[in-house]
Amino acid sequence: MIILGIDPGSNCTGYGIIEVNGSAEHARAQGVIRLSSDTAHVDRLKQIYDGVAELIDAHTPEVLAIEMPVYGKNPQSMLKLGRAQAAAMMAGLNHDLDVVQYTPKEVKKSVTGNGNASKQQVRYMIHAILEMNGAAADISLDASDALAIALCHTNRRSHGATEQYSGWGSFVDANPDRVQ
Amino acid sequence: MIILGIDPGSNCTGYGIIEVNGSAEHARAQGVIRLSSDTAHVDRLKQIYDGVAELIDAHTPEVLAIEMPVYGKNPQSMLKLGRAQAAAMMAGLNHDLDVVQYTPKEVKKSVTGNGNASKQQVRYMIHAILEMNGAAADISLDASDALAIALCHTNRRSHGATEQYSGWGSFVDANPDRVQ
Repeated sequence: MIILGIDPGSNCTGYGIIEVNGSAEHARAQGVIRLSSDTAHVDRLKQIYDGVAELIDAHTPEVLAIEMPVYGKNPQSMLKLGRAQAAAMMAGLNHDLDVVQYTPKEVKKSVTGNGNASKQQVRYMIHAILEMNGAAADISLDASDALAIALCHTNRRSHGATEQYSGWGSFVDANPDRVQ
Repeated sequence: MIILGIDPGSNCTGYGIIEVNGSAEHARAQGVIRLSSDTAHVDRLKQIYDGVAELIDAHTPEVLAIEMPVYGKNPQSMLKLGRAQAAAMMAGLNHDLDVVQYTPKEVKKSVTGNGNASKQQVRYMIHAILEMNGAAADISLDASDALAIALCHTNRRSHGATEQYSGWGSFVDANPDRVQ
């Protein structure tokens, strides 16, 4: 099974692709979809969509796992994140992938055992679990976050958990402290 | 020239299609893309995308004009609106339409002369300007808002204005009072 993890952002969208064979997991690809900083926000959405669609064509994942944006205080950031997220999700939906969402806390906890782990700690664990070549520090933090999201999905599956948030209601129910 | 106006929402997305021939404008179609209330939010994005794509196939507009969501206080609502908006925008972008955005204030001012007009006032003016059949009250407010967005674009074009926000920066510059 191949899983595409996406860490959405309107400036830089990380991706990580994990292949699972039985209990063996390895990273097929990872990196970032760089977005032109001088491009209108609308065009960046298209860049995200096209970048994700290319990854799907190249790696034929069955699932797109994406991080729910962290709640910020700035409504503009929320809107931008929601849009960036939806652009990536639409690429998955239009290619008939299952689209699942995880909160940052779930992802961190699943990979490091600690829901409040730093990005560096997540990267360190990803590098170790997936037995990746080279130094952990050479992986961009956006890409290691995306690999962590994909890995979170494989962990959830293998443990039989089905706590994917299928709607905002269920997310709010599970995360009352996250709602401002 | 044919313009598709979209009033995005995650529960109900209004649409209105206006055809412009010289100085004559008429409504080709209007209505709402109803979204299943019992469907996961991810699936609703696909419904919005597919609904907008169908309209584009049927009416071959050149431009998709969309309303910038109003700033709310609830970050969740902002995320949902951003996602709903992006789903509609992606359908336009993937069909090579120009995607332009207007604030609710611009739309209201363009159609009624008053940036603080009520939805009912907007509907009344849309009904009169486009010489629509039947009673104004029979048009849903989501659909009349969408027609107003399309009409706002034709007004902007005919007056040579180019105040379409091409990015967040320009929007913020033009609307300092809207940033919380």
